[in-house]
Amino acid sequence: MGGKRGGKRGLLITVEGVEGSGKTTQCARLAKRLREAGHRVLETREPGGTPLAEQIRSLFLGTAAGAERAEPITPESEALLVFACRSQHISQVIEPAIRQGVIVLCDRFLDSTLAYQGYGRGLDVKTLRTLNRFAAKGLAPSLTLLFDLPAQTGLARRRRNDLELNRLDREAKQFHERVRRGFLALTAKEPRRIKVLDARADPDQVEAAAWTLVQRCLAKHQKVSKS
Amino acid sequence: MGGKRGGKRGLLITVEGVEGSGKTTQCARLAKRLREAGHRVLETREPGGTPLAEQIRSLFLGTAAGAERAEPITPESEALLVFACRSQHISQVIEPAIRQGVIVLCDRFLDSTLAYQGYGRGLDVKTLRTLNRFAAKGLAPSLTLLFDLPAQTGLARRRRNDLELNRLDREAKQFHERVRRGFLALTAKEPRRIKVLDARADPDQVEAAAWTLVQRCLAKHQKVSKS
Repeated sequence: MGGKRGGKRGLLITVEGVEGSGKTTQCARLAKRLREAGHRVLETREPGGTPLAEQIRSLFLGTAAGAERAEPITPESEALLVFACRSQHISQVIEPAIRQGVIVLCDRFLDSTLAYQGYGRGLDVKTLRTLNRFAAKGLAPSLTLLFDLPAQTGLARRRRNDLELNRLDREAKQFHERVRRGFLALTAKEPRRIKVLDARADPDQVEAAAWTLVQRCLAKHQKVSKS
Repeated sequence: MGGKRGGKRGLLITVEGVEGSGKTTQCARLAKRLREAGHRVLETREPGGTPLAEQIRSLFLGTAAGAERAEPITPESEALLVFACRSQHISQVIEPAIRQGVIVLCDRFLDSTLAYQGYGRGLDVKTLRTLNRFAAKGLAPSLTLLFDLPAQTGLARRRRNDLELNRLDREAKQFHERVRRGFLALTAKEPRRIKVLDARADPDQVEAAAWTLVQRCLAKHQKVSKS
């Protein structure tokens, strides 16, 4: 992630968590803080982030027109669609931004795929990592913030906020609990990259903790870029 | 592919070839012959074959509304979308039909993916086979008919017939020539499954040759089912 032709390469920071963990809100707050600190920031999300990937996203989440009578989607197809979106997203959006020195903040990335399609749906995590190498060609986040809370709490929050529920939101509670445990298992494997934040805390406190982690990551990145 | 609980399992026959090889026409003729011989037949195609897969197909081929200004699709994304379609197609359509004793005739299948995305686009064929194991879960055609002719001849035919050209049709001639060579390379590896037909011959002659191959495959299948 060092400088290239004298220009400083940007980096990728991802935010992860179960539904209702507040990660999307925290992502926006971090973007604001980063901009105030003088950084160029790109906020994006997965699955999606390009016109084609967003079209696939709405097929995937069953929010496209006429999706009420949609056919059941196989776990394999779900994963393959997510990876197709990721390949587009990286080549069209993320890589070009990083090359220009931009900090890319992405709402969901590989860890969501492993947690939802792997731990949640029961697909083999090793195979999913193989698919990711094919789709992402080695691009990995410099930092991942996991906004953690019990799946039940997250779902209750989401319902209280009266947000429209998509196909994944409507899955059984056990599914969401498996996803949460998946995120924590991934964190245990990569504690240096994935940092857990208690999403039940006051949003301002969560934001402050997240900001500290981001600043630390940027400082490290700058050091590496200079050396 | 033997009988299950006394019922006879159907089978999958695929037709392959470059654009303008006449495979779609021949597929319809075979379906007619099979029906006349008393078989239940399902004609289908890839990418596509289910409502969701057909939606993805039109994103993929750039024939969806507003696709003129479509973003470039990475070879990886293209392959992942094809495999996502295949997973849906098999689980929703092909497997249920085969279980009911139907003969499924599919216009394009795995060999097209290997020829177009592998030999054509340059993706690693071994990785594509790994993706196929993930998506197709072991389902393989009992017979594949390859309607072969020089790519140039096929493209000229297609233009003469004034068919609307999709994103893949508009690729360079060299691309289509690589695809054709890919099909022939695949045939060399699996000569028992893939049978080559000279698509430059008179359509009635091509049909007769194809019909002989299909009958031979069915006779073998019946023998296996009975034993």
